[in-house]
Amino acid sequence: MTAPSTPPAAPFDWIEEQRRTRAAAGLTRTLRPRPAHSPLLDLAGNDYLGLSRHPEVVEGAAEAARQWGGGATGSRLVSGTTELHAQLERELAEFCGFEAALVLSSGYAANLAAVTALAPHGSLIVSDAGNHASLIDGCRLARGATQVVPHADPEAVRKALGTHDGPAVVVSDTVFSVDGDRAPLGELASVCREFGAGLLLDDAHGLGLLGDGGRGAPHAAGLAGAADTVVTVTLSKSLGSQGGAVLGPAHVIEHLVNAARTFIFDTGLAPAAAGAALAALRVLRGEPERAARGRDVALTLHQLLTGAGFSAVRPDAAVVSVLAPSPEDAVSWAAGCRAEGLAVGCFRPPSVPDGISRLRLTARADLTDSQVAEAVRVISRTSPKGAISAGS
Amino acid sequence: MTAPSTPPAAPFDWIEEQRRTRAAAGLTRTLRPRPAHSPLLDLAGNDYLGLSRHPEVVEGAAEAARQWGGGATGSRLVSGTTELHAQLERELAEFCGFEAALVLSSGYAANLAAVTALAPHGSLIVSDAGNHASLIDGCRLARGATQVVPHADPEAVRKALGTHDGPAVVVSDTVFSVDGDRAPLGELASVCREFGAGLLLDDAHGLGLLGDGGRGAPHAAGLAGAADTVVTVTLSKSLGSQGGAVLGPAHVIEHLVNAARTFIFDTGLAPAAAGAALAALRVLRGEPERAARGRDVALTLHQLLTGAGFSAVRPDAAVVSVLAPSPEDAVSWAAGCRAEGLAVGCFRPPSVPDGISRLRLTARADLTDSQVAEAVRVISRTSPKGAISAGS
Repeated sequence: MTAPSTPPAAPFDWIEEQRRTRAAAGLTRTLRPRPAHSPLLDLAGNDYLGLSRHPEVVEGAAEAARQWGGGATGSRLVSGTTELHAQLERELAEFCGFEAALVLSSGYAANLAAVTALAPHGSLIVSDAGNHASLIDGCRLARGATQVVPHADPEAVRKALGTHDGPAVVVSDTVFSVDGDRAPLGELASVCREFGAGLLLDDAHGLGLLGDGGRGAPHAAGLAGAADTVVTVTLSKSLGSQGGAVLGPAHVIEHLVNAARTFIFDTGLAPAAAGAALAALRVLRGEPERAARGRDVALTLHQLLTGAGFSAVRPDAAVVSVLAPSPEDAVSWAAGCRAEGLAVGCFRPPSVPDGISRLRLTARADLTDSQVAEAVRVISRTSPKGAISAGS
Repeated sequence: MTAPSTPPAAPFDWIEEQRRTRAAAGLTRTLRPRPAHSPLLDLAGNDYLGLSRHPEVVEGAAEAARQWGGGATGSRLVSGTTELHAQLERELAEFCGFEAALVLSSGYAANLAAVTALAPHGSLIVSDAGNHASLIDGCRLARGATQVVPHADPEAVRKALGTHDGPAVVVSDTVFSVDGDRAPLGELASVCREFGAGLLLDDAHGLGLLGDGGRGAPHAAGLAGAADTVVTVTLSKSLGSQGGAVLGPAHVIEHLVNAARTFIFDTGLAPAAAGAALAALRVLRGEPERAARGRDVALTLHQLLTGAGFSAVRPDAAVVSVLAPSPEDAVSWAAGCRAEGLAVGCFRPPSVPDGISRLRLTARADLTDSQVAEAVRVISRTSPKGAISAGS
């Protein structure tokens, strides 16, 4: 109850120890600001359809700022809902085949909103071990209990659901962000229906690439508009903007409006981001071939890489994951690529467990065949010892 | 382990019961999309300095979209950090008096990042009972243990810190979003220093209004740049845009880059939002009198309301809170104001505990004296029985 008699340590001293540990392992993360027009060939970003710089998308952002101002000015429940948000929600729901949509300030916020609102006290959440951080944080915030099940394993989901009496929701990415592999949506839906459980799918990496004209993985699996299926998407990948959305039956969306803290207590998405996303959606609707081109680029990339001897997961959407021998190798490999003009992602601990460190490449619909070939040449030239036999 | 033999209930049926309860209590929340140019006088939004529609802010958003595209395209650790983000971070840190800053996609994300990164396993978080939802969710996600202490009570903080051996952080809004009252920052800082605890302050409602030229409540309290103080701000209120930031010592910010999940696993703030916030910051720097004007408008509003007999909390920044007799009265009062051309906020359960439902008015630096007088006339005309004596 009394203050300590010896002077206490500085409050954030413990940070220094963590810093040293990271530095010793060569795993310090640093920010590298890029210029507006980078000389690097970008296979790191998630602008899967190349729409972020599309003139109509840029003008959608600029025009929305002019019409509606720099910000939404408040929670969407107070002053932050504009006709622009409503329009985006209508078109997004219609495109993906759902009754209603709710737009939030980020995909992260959308996932926190959906998981927490659909998993009340006494409910069970069954969560795939490979789910994105935002879904995991949603599980940790939710009032329901979480059971983590092995990756892409419908039988494990069945077992988990069998242990619980009461509301349950199964939560999964449709396309997993690290490996780019797809969840077994049909089987997950069957298991859910057997037990009367809801299915919550994060289609961040599917929208714009999978399904008819890019309508997403749930649409491709025949789950669009289903009464027991809720989908989250992001506006920051294929749609080249910022924000997230929850798609589902109207009564579920109304429930989120009333119950989801990251919706209620957050400022609405900035008009410019809503305008950019709406413009991108309209471009995609008018040019559905962009979705197939994005997938084709990814498949070509995979083919060339495995042809060169690398161990790469066959992509279901746009993410192509290449195994590295070690975390340190992954970091130096990515740095080598960068030095030769190629930006690639690098996943290593703590983002992924030790032993599966990798380069993460992303296809873009606007990459040319020669850019893809050049990327593979750089990756080969800079590859560490052991990369070629790492997974074979 | 086997599927139930009777057909299970539809998965989201339990939502209907919650809907009915809300509807019966008259507490259903609905979205009311506004047009680009609303005829309503807006005392509901958080655009405290009236900068959201400022030509330079709008052009800042539009120009950033043109230069950098509709979205950041990835995590700030991959492709999502631009020179624009870095510039915003430098100017924001310098303006508020801190060594470094980190920009995130929302204030909510900034609070989740700061609380979780500063409260490791084995640490104690001491959290004010009136803290914003995003700080509360940060406490729930953090690995440390949380002790909630009574509102604005440094003695309670002292007692809580006295129970713990190890790293500790005290978390508080600087200006509380519901009542608009200020935290006792000087006393909190003293107590923290006594025990070697860190101090984490959310200045969402202080930035742009308090401190020299709007440098914020921590600056006003002499805490800017302190080694033991970390501050979060939002770009979506006084700066008229979207996004959030964490300000603090450089090594703390570096720690967040390496440890904060809502930073690492989220797409970077959209360039248009960064551009709008940067432009707004520059306007504020050039016109520091906006901060004082925002506070003056709030004080006038408070004076006129209490003069008319209402129970209103004396504003420390721009939020003016007026007590309503009941949650239902608060809802119908706000609706009455709206019908007469005035938009006001309305806080009632579950946003606030029962018994303290209220109208929430926000001052803006660009409101004229006659607009303020008109607002008070509408509030008086539409006030429910009991509003005038409710708190006196």
